[in-house]
Amino acid sequence: MNPGSYTIEVIVENKPLARDPEGETIHHNLILKGGYSQITQVRAGKILRMTVKALSQENARDLVKKLCDDLRIYNPAAHTCQVRIIEPNSTV
Amino acid sequence: MNPGSYTIEVIVENKPLARDPEGETIHHNLILKGGYSQITQVRAGKILRMTVKALSQENARDLVKKLCDDLRIYNPAAHTCQVRIIEPNSTV
Repeated sequence: MNPGSYTIEVIVENKPLARDPEGETIHHNLILKGGYSQITQVRAGKILRMTVKALSQENARDLVKKLCDDLRIYNPAAHTCQVRIIEPNSTV
Repeated sequence: MNPGSYTIEVIVENKPLARDPEGETIHHNLILKGGYSQITQVRAGKILRMTVKALSQENARDLVKKLCDDLRIYNPAAHTCQVRIIEPNSTV
């Protein structure tokens, strides 16, 4: 199999039970004051979209998972870290 | 139809042709120095995960799209803004 190029997204957020002052501020001071009361919660986070050379999507994802732990991309005590495969034809 | 609660993600990144100093720094000074040369690009961005009361997923997405433009969640001259529906049973 030849290596291909895959897109992997890493999403780092505060843990669900931890407070998220950035999301709370956006929610209260921007969205609710702007009249959008249908929005009941906002959580803010970072996204890193990585392009990875690998033999398969799964290899690419596993490499990025390892990298995130190894290089301390997130703090496991405070954050959740999701690693997602993005389909090549996905429009998002 | 009764209103339900839907999860919508908003992802704001610098436009593809614009530079992204944060992503470049993470790529060069952390990831490549850490030995992960399989990673060929990193783009950084913000994610806002919103919980929305709406009649349908599509209504929730359309409301969040409107809100992002209306409240200037992003700068259309500099950023791309993706609005994604997240399936309730999605594990990501």
